[in-house]
Amino acid sequence: MTGDTELKRQLVHRHIRPFPDFPKKGIMFRDICPILKEPAALAAVIDLFEEHARKNYEKVELIVGLDARGFLFGPLLAQRLGIGFVLIRKKGKLPGATVSVVYDLEYGTAEMEIQEDGVAPGQKVLLIDDLLATGGTLLAACELMRKQQAEVLGCMVIIELKELNGIEKLKPLSVYSLLEY
Amino acid sequence: MTGDTELKRQLVHRHIRPFPDFPKKGIMFRDICPILKEPAALAAVIDLFEEHARKNYEKVELIVGLDARGFLFGPLLAQRLGIGFVLIRKKGKLPGATVSVVYDLEYGTAEMEIQEDGVAPGQKVLLIDDLLATGGTLLAACELMRKQQAEVLGCMVIIELKELNGIEKLKPLSVYSLLEY
Repeated sequence: MTGDTELKRQLVHRHIRPFPDFPKKGIMFRDICPILKEPAALAAVIDLFEEHARKNYEKVELIVGLDARGFLFGPLLAQRLGIGFVLIRKKGKLPGATVSVVYDLEYGTAEMEIQEDGVAPGQKVLLIDDLLATGGTLLAACELMRKQQAEVLGCMVIIELKELNGIEKLKPLSVYSLLEY
Repeated sequence: MTGDTELKRQLVHRHIRPFPDFPKKGIMFRDICPILKEPAALAAVIDLFEEHARKNYEKVELIVGLDARGFLFGPLLAQRLGIGFVLIRKKGKLPGATVSVVYDLEYGTAEMEIQEDGVAPGQKVLLIDDLLATGGTLLAACELMRKQQAEVLGCMVIIELKELNGIEKLKPLSVYSLLEY
């Protein structure tokens, strides 16, 4: 890691706000809104993602981002890399033929989907979201990609919550996080 | 309008797909996903927004984007302008003190909110979303800004659905759309 990389990480870190007991008691929520509000911090996030992607995933063809906070960063990264961005959305939001996957939430289940022509068989994609917690959402996104026969090169997130051990659930997938808590 | 501007509009137009009867019978849905997937088309959207903002709203201090499709374009524009991006989200998604507004949907109501410290009194903001339809959502966003005593310089959208006449509802607010249908 270069000194410049470490400075960028610190800049990002200073723009994440902890909120105890949100969305419910016992959860420490890490708010990324201050990153978006400070242009230099947002640029640092995209710099770090870009640097990692160019070094490790030079064959990437598409960035695939998760509804809704993946939308904040994915198009910026895709533009930097000169490639396209594809949306994974909550059920019912995308028109046309879609492919969907049901996944577990803490209580009950949810469904996410992608347009059938969103990714083509064999395409090399990177998944992007703001946060890796239990890994359930990213695992479901990987399952969607598998259904489409796309090749997931890796996942990138800003924050990894280590104690929830989501990285174990996603193995052998490579996950890059800018910050660990 | 310069020839270059017109070419960019045409490029954007070619990457919008119509889907009849979505999300329900009688509605012609304009799908913007192909724009995101084609880097040149997405760059054209941001070029056009940037050009308009620099010409008409040079004092803008913040881009405020609506959940969730405003998130796809807002941070890109904010980075181009070197300013911050603030999120308006559906109820319950933002931590900390928030300000909210209830607005009408076709059936029932919905609620959107912003963090209380998202925009400061007197700040000059631009609202961004993908679509102007009836204008209900953007009107609610304006109401949120009014509650925060921010000054809305204008709204920018990719698509305006003329027949729904949302622009009338938003008057005297200036609305810039890249394409009209």
